[in-house]
Amino acid sequence: MKKIYDYQKDDQVNLYVLIKSADEKITRTNKPYLSFTFQDTSGEISANYWDVTPEDIEKFKPGTVIRLEGKREEYKGNPQIRINAIRPAKEDEPNNPELYVERAPINKDKMVEEFNHALFDITNANMNRIVRFIMKKYQHDFFQSPAAKTNHHAFMGGLAYHTVSMLRIARSLSEIYTDLDVSLLFSGVILHDVGKVVELSGPTATDYTLEGKLIGHIVMINEDIVRACRELKIDEDHEDVLLLKHTVLAHHGELEYGSPVRPLIPEAEMIHYIDQIDAKMNMISSALRKTEPGEFSERVWAMNNRSFYKKTYINPASDSK
Amino acid sequence: MKKIYDYQKDDQVNLYVLIKSADEKITRTNKPYLSFTFQDTSGEISANYWDVTPEDIEKFKPGTVIRLEGKREEYKGNPQIRINAIRPAKEDEPNNPELYVERAPINKDKMVEEFNHALFDITNANMNRIVRFIMKKYQHDFFQSPAAKTNHHAFMGGLAYHTVSMLRIARSLSEIYTDLDVSLLFSGVILHDVGKVVELSGPTATDYTLEGKLIGHIVMINEDIVRACRELKIDEDHEDVLLLKHTVLAHHGELEYGSPVRPLIPEAEMIHYIDQIDAKMNMISSALRKTEPGEFSERVWAMNNRSFYKKTYINPASDSK
Amino acid sequence: MKKIYDYQKDDQVNLYVLIKSADEKITRTNKPYLSFTFQDTSGEISANYWDVTPEDIEKFKPGTVIRLEGKREEYKGNPQIRINAIRPAKEDEPNNPELYVERAPINKDKMVEEFNHALFDITNANMNRIVRFIMKKYQHDFFQSPAAKTNHHAFMGGLAYHTVSMLRIARSLSEIYTDLDVSLLFSGVILHDVGKVVELSGPTATDYTLEGKLIGHIVMINEDIVRACRELKIDEDHEDVLLLKHTVLAHHGELEYGSPVRPLIPEAEMIHYIDQIDAKMNMISSALRKTEPGEFSERVWAMNNRSFYKKTYINPASDSK
Amino acid sequence: MKKIYDYQKDDQVNLYVLIKSADEKITRTNKPYLSFTFQDTSGEISANYWDVTPEDIEKFKPGTVIRLEGKREEYKGNPQIRINAIRPAKEDEPNNPELYVERAPINKDKMVEEFNHALFDITNANMNRIVRFIMKKYQHDFFQSPAAKTNHHAFMGGLAYHTVSMLRIARSLSEIYTDLDVSLLFSGVILHDVGKVVELSGPTATDYTLEGKLIGHIVMINEDIVRACRELKIDEDHEDVLLLKHTVLAHHGELEYGSPVRPLIPEAEMIHYIDQIDAKMNMISSALRKTEPGEFSERVWAMNNRSFYKKTYINPASDSK
Amino acid sequence: MKKIYDYQKDDQVNLYVLIKSADEKITRTNKPYLSFTFQDTSGEISANYWDVTPEDIEKFKPGTVIRLEGKREEYKGNPQIRINAIRPAKEDEPNNPELYVERAPINKDKMVEEFNHALFDITNANMNRIVRFIMKKYQHDFFQSPAAKTNHHAFMGGLAYHTVSMLRIARSLSEIYTDLDVSLLFSGVILHDVGKVVELSGPTATDYTLEGKLIGHIVMINEDIVRACRELKIDEDHEDVLLLKHTVLAHHGELEYGSPVRPLIPEAEMIHYIDQIDAKMNMISSALRKTEPGEFSERVWAMNNRSFYKKTYINPASDSK
Amino acid sequence: MKKIYDYQKDDQVNLYVLIKSADEKITRTNKPYLSFTFQDTSGEISANYWDVTPEDIEKFKPGTVIRLEGKREEYKGNPQIRINAIRPAKEDEPNNPELYVERAPINKDKMVEEFNHALFDITNANMNRIVRFIMKKYQHDFFQSPAAKTNHHAFMGGLAYHTVSMLRIARSLSEIYTDLDVSLLFSGVILHDVGKVVELSGPTATDYTLEGKLIGHIVMINEDIVRACRELKIDEDHEDVLLLKHTVLAHHGELEYGSPVRPLIPEAEMIHYIDQIDAKMNMISSALRKTEPGEFSERVWAMNNRSFYKKTYINPASDSK
Repeated sequence: MKKIYDYQKDDQVNLYVLIKSADEKITRTNKPYLSFTFQDTSGEISANYWDVTPEDIEKFKPGTVIRLEGKREEYKGNPQIRINAIRPAKEDEPNNPELYVERAPINKDKMVEEFNHALFDITNANMNRIVRFIMKKYQHDFFQSPAAKTNHHAFMGGLAYHTVSMLRIARSLSEIYTDLDVSLLFSGVILHDVGKVVELSGPTATDYTLEGKLIGHIVMINEDIVRACRELKIDEDHEDVLLLKHTVLAHHGELEYGSPVRPLIPEAEMIHYIDQIDAKMNMISSALRKTEPGEFSERVWAMNNRSFYKKTYINPASDSK
Repeated sequence: MKKIYDYQKDDQVNLYVLIKSADEKITRTNKPYLSFTFQDTSGEISANYWDVTPEDIEKFKPGTVIRLEGKREEYKGNPQIRINAIRPAKEDEPNNPELYVERAPINKDKMVEEFNHALFDITNANMNRIVRFIMKKYQHDFFQSPAAKTNHHAFMGGLAYHTVSMLRIARSLSEIYTDLDVSLLFSGVILHDVGKVVELSGPTATDYTLEGKLIGHIVMINEDIVRACRELKIDEDHEDVLLLKHTVLAHHGELEYGSPVRPLIPEAEMIHYIDQIDAKMNMISSALRKTEPGEFSERVWAMNNRSFYKKTYINPASDSK
Repeated sequence: MKKIYDYQKDDQVNLYVLIKSADEKITRTNKPYLSFTFQDTSGEISANYWDVTPEDIEKFKPGTVIRLEGKREEYKGNPQIRINAIRPAKEDEPNNPELYVERAPINKDKMVEEFNHALFDITNANMNRIVRFIMKKYQHDFFQSPAAKTNHHAFMGGLAYHTVSMLRIARSLSEIYTDLDVSLLFSGVILHDVGKVVELSGPTATDYTLEGKLIGHIVMINEDIVRACRELKIDEDHEDVLLLKHTVLAHHGELEYGSPVRPLIPEAEMIHYIDQIDAKMNMISSALRKTEPGEFSERVWAMNNRSFYKKTYINPASDSK
Repeated sequence: MKKIYDYQKDDQVNLYVLIKSADEKITRTNKPYLSFTFQDTSGEISANYWDVTPEDIEKFKPGTVIRLEGKREEYKGNPQIRINAIRPAKEDEPNNPELYVERAPINKDKMVEEFNHALFDITNANMNRIVRFIMKKYQHDFFQSPAAKTNHHAFMGGLAYHTVSMLRIARSLSEIYTDLDVSLLFSGVILHDVGKVVELSGPTATDYTLEGKLIGHIVMINEDIVRACRELKIDEDHEDVLLLKHTVLAHHGELEYGSPVRPLIPEAEMIHYIDQIDAKMNMISSALRKTEPGEFSERVWAMNNRSFYKKTYINPASDSK
Repeated sequence: MKKIYDYQKDDQVNLYVLIKSADEKITRTNKPYLSFTFQDTSGEISANYWDVTPEDIEKFKPGTVIRLEGKREEYKGNPQIRINAIRPAKEDEPNNPELYVERAPINKDKMVEEFNHALFDITNANMNRIVRFIMKKYQHDFFQSPAAKTNHHAFMGGLAYHTVSMLRIARSLSEIYTDLDVSLLFSGVILHDVGKVVELSGPTATDYTLEGKLIGHIVMINEDIVRACRELKIDEDHEDVLLLKHTVLAHHGELEYGSPVRPLIPEAEMIHYIDQIDAKMNMISSALRKTEPGEFSERVWAMNNRSFYKKTYINPASDSK
Repeated sequence: MKKIYDYQKDDQVNLYVLIKSADEKITRTNKPYLSFTFQDTSGEISANYWDVTPEDIEKFKPGTVIRLEGKREEYKGNPQIRINAIRPAKEDEPNNPELYVERAPINKDKMVEEFNHALFDITNANMNRIVRFIMKKYQHDFFQSPAAKTNHHAFMGGLAYHTVSMLRIARSLSEIYTDLDVSLLFSGVILHDVGKVVELSGPTATDYTLEGKLIGHIVMINEDIVRACRELKIDEDHEDVLLLKHTVLAHHGELEYGSPVRPLIPEAEMIHYIDQIDAKMNMISSALRKTEPGEFSERVWAMNNRSFYKKTYINPASDSK
């Protein structure tokens, strides 16, 4: 099934999309219209629907899957759709909204399996118990939550997917740098962003919660470690606990990025870099996915506003993949 | 009783001082000597004691009060003492080491009274209970602890004295900015640096503890609020608790100074400035205390290395004070 | 009388407002319309008035108070008014434009009284004479001028009100830090922003003057001290004069904020902080005034683009106020 | 065989070391002495040798292995040796200087093998030819050169070892991020620091060469790609060549770290992070190697002057390794 | 002949202009129109042409000179034209597009002459040969190319004009600082920006090329020196070559501005400043050309967003010029 | 006559020098000695004179020219002299201290002539009168004063010499950028650093004065313009005066370098760059004067700690100079 961003400028468009938002507006000549944002797994696009009736407004609410006919245009450099005709998708058509939302490229069962594998390798008893306690508390939301509001992994399941990718990197780096404490490394990776489950308001229309803004996910997960220790009767002054807390608190790497302490043990430094790599690779590949070979992507604000180049040649090595 | 810094360069010196440190060294010609730091409430000064015997080393240990005769000199721009004669202070002489250590200029009873007055004005029940719970836990050490290792209020009782001064400012500013929530303002002031009781190793030979370095006093006090809520059965999601936590977490003002969040409510912004004012006034007056009128002080590292000027004129207004 | 910002989105609006600006424009279909900014003491709002006649343009000039009927809407996230009907206010209606302009919350007489009180406490003769000389020159404009073009205290009388607030803080801090020279502290506070009388073009449609841009208010007040000394035959090399100049020149605290020297005496450092506190408290409370309890304000550009939280609970202590 | 840093403060020392430097100096009383730096694979330490004869000076030249008897002391916080007796190592003693120099922990043959394996995986013909051409030119020095003058991998073979570690990371990350072009990634890793062979003066007494200072290793390797293309008749305008150059030029990540362009393709961004990880892990483990469990290391200048903590507990998981 | 910016706001306009761009758009009521940018040597201005026919779209393509009647207006603070009538310029009218494009104020022949004069003064044989070799390669494009996409000298011939101005400054400064090596100074000036010929896509619709973005003009000219040496059999290790390369590489002055090395010889430092002076004077005079006396210019982004003042008085000295 | 820095390390030294400073010290074994700084026009060097008598101390006071025999050595990387014998210079020997002090390379008469030439070209009457008034006030000290305490032109007459060099550059640039107002450019150059006459304590043992520290030379010269206008009855609101003040106030270019305003007219921007060029060229050539060809200089703190390279080759062009 063709997607929005499979069409070029000036192409006739004919496809199913999800209405992400639908704002009622009026023209300067006082006529009502709907300002839509449509969405499928290839991205989002806006469109205006002129001269709407009250019935239209009722019919085309956010969350509705529609059949869209129109033309792919550009307005002030941004892609938009000129609508010829729209109607709600029918019963026998692909009308499940979840089909149109970006999600992690591996399914939840596979991710749970990888988490369990990592938990198994956390042989330090204190750390293992703390991690299990906290993950149990958040297990449902953790696999739904995005990893950020807008920057990287900003989709349903993004947080778990980001964490799984980091576990994979952590595993391979622990084989290269054999001095690293695997229990601490894996525990830190699993917990580092769990606070985002509470910091962010959930997978759709994601925003920061009050607690997210006033306390922040870094300190929130530290609080959860405190609570876990009290429940599990683990001595908070034990070095295991101090190091685990430190690893989570320091994972942004520098004070100016919101960590109250900078990494002072190798595992903390490593988790910071693993987090960076996975976030940045995700942002670059998101940007390049919407870019033609031989062109530069739109600017990526969270990467110093850089614009990335998509190469034109096909490497023989990746041909056969 | 005359103090070290009451003497000028080249004066003959004749006074009681405390040995703060005494390092055994040898000259290039292999002769043993003691490198002393002497101390009284006016400050510290170094001195070398040549050709020492093993008995001398035994006799002149750190913590001993001695009678010192010598000459106030300068070596590479720093004041030092040339020792003519030293002997331990006798029974009937002022040989209590505590007499020679800098301490808060108001006594503990007076400070406790001011704290109780402030606690009385915290009418918000949640905040009042949390503050009392935490202060009870640290009450002994709180009145002993310095407020910093080297920068400001780095003396026994300095933490309590710094906090009392801040309460005074907070009280007067709350009368000018009447929208401020007094309960939150006072609670935040009292708790903001309590974590230093654990972050620093105590009033003498102060250093950072392991927990101080890996977690930091800002997050440590946040943990104590979490623990207090659990003990006191206070709902941690209550706005009272969130705001109190936020006020403490944000009091360094900017991420790069170690606060994981920046102030987002007026009370948090105000506490940040009150903290700044008291710390800076303390550092400037410490520097000026050792400076002659009409001269510039030594450079103050924690204030961008500025050197402050001590004015020469006497204002009639302050004459009569 | 209800004000603009007492209405919610989609409310019918029925009130008197002042026309702050009225720009003639044409629609894409070549029809003339007026783009208004309306104002009352609760803030400003924009509105378009379609299909205007030349008589309308004549009738609805800036400075006119009008009766407005319409609807409170939002356009691209900003509040605006959809006009149903407007007419100029009549004789027996509240048609004095001054009623609609934000102004200092204490009246001029009260402010003059506080200034005189402060002048009385400047016992240093040189400083007292210089301050009186300069204030006499600017006395009219000083009580009219805003303290800034857009950031803090940007309203008629804002400069005097800002200075009075700072004097109150200075007075209470001088009682806590008794080493401070009250004459210098008060003189510095009074003079620190007087240059803004000339730097800014006045209380309405405030902009920077040529001199304001090329010289700046910090250096301009220093020039006035030079001129005062010459008129009053005060020796410019006297330490009193140097310190007063320094206090004014250094009040922005850091070179990058426009002070040609950093504070090198305690009074200069203190005035910098007092200025900061009053400016920031004013900006936060302006932002929170337009914010609903439990919500975050619009971003405040001059405070690192922070958005402030308005708490929901009522503190019992402030109930009775 | 016990090494220098196996001894504690105040231990009697009895071991073989290499003289790294030996400066003739005179005491204030005009007596000649030698100021030594001794070295073995555990680190470096200084010592003064008093009252030397001209024969001593001749006998104890840099590069000589000696038998050292003395005492491990501290002078101004730095470890030093008080010499009791020294003599050159004899024929039947371990007198080969190479035994005392730090070197890569894997031998050259193993490293060559890993390089060949990586070269085999560079299936892009242009890149493969360019990389082979350049590596052939530097093959001898590449396996001798340190990777830096002082910071990370500052030992014989350090450059090759650093590159091999990066290849291992690159290989495992290319399995996680399967979009990455393996040819480009491996080519970029191999070439990124080859310029250091010329930028640095060699494995002992390493310093920057004139070309190193005026041109820099980043631009120097770019020049080598230009030269390789001309020799191999490869079209310099081919995207393969542009991307390879870009990857090398951008590997410092930011302009302020000396890259004339920032990474604009995913492989360049990734190489930057791989380089960071390996450099930082090397610096941390160097610092921790000289640190006691439960203590903080000396400050590491190239890592923002941080001091790292060496944990005390033994993780069961690493016991069995 | 009167130019666009000779007209004031609200003037009737009657002149020939070049169509720089013409974008087809539609109004909200679905009517097609053309959004023009017109251009002459005084600057650029935009205009909308309503209700266009397909013939209009064909007739008014970019690159066409037209006769324009209309009115000079302002829209949101920017000047624009309200079109009354337009038609293509006729045969006997000034219809050559080149007449409307900004260009260097001195002609090519004069610039070539100054270059030859400078080349003559490069007496160092190596440098002279390298400079001639490279300039020969680019001679055509060099005199067409702008010096930047938007900032300074962004017009046809701008690169050559910028370089000629710099040569004039270099010549006069070399007479004041007689230690400077004239050969190196002139060679560095001539080559410093030659890479822009390839970095930028040419004199019209200027953009960065792929090579310009991935490699950058600084490194590109360094590559050309490498190639020149190989063709001319000049030893690349000769100090002449190293210094010339260094001068070009370092001319941006600081790493963060894209130079991979900072200036380490006086000629490199000097070229950096000469470049700055000419770029900044060009930007200021461009901004002031569009500014009325006694007013401030629009903000100049590349000069920290400053807005420059155009003085009102006429200096007698410049009267007679 | 051979100078200090004409000697190499380990050379026997035999020459006349000036005693710049002579500090009495004692050895650890309580013997008095003198710690000298000697000086001639090639630079400064330190030396210790052991076992001095009170007569020696009397005889070898600062300001005395002596005959020195000794050896040029190095101590911790810094050159020093080992004294064999010293005696005061005799009547018939070169005993005038002024012969040993670095000074401007052109004499005062020549500089005065250049100033007069520049004054003649300031045709704007207001500026001409202001400049003459201020220069008359400082004429004596201006030609004695250094331009800085340590950085650039830190020698007797350095201020005037720096200003003359800037006038030369200003003259030649005004011929290239003919829009510049010559009166303003020359006036700004002459006045820009005159405040240093008062900011610095004079040509020997230069330090900052109290006024220099509290007010700064930039604001001090602005005050002098105010005073000049009052004496000369020039209207301070005249644009001539505003622009001249602005030019002086803005000459440091950026707020963080101490200018209270940034340059907003082309003449101010140009003066900033001219000042930079002359200061930096002076610092580089001072550093290179003490450097061997083919070597790098000591680090220059005020130029970001760079170390400059002295080239080895002789350019044929400069041979004949």
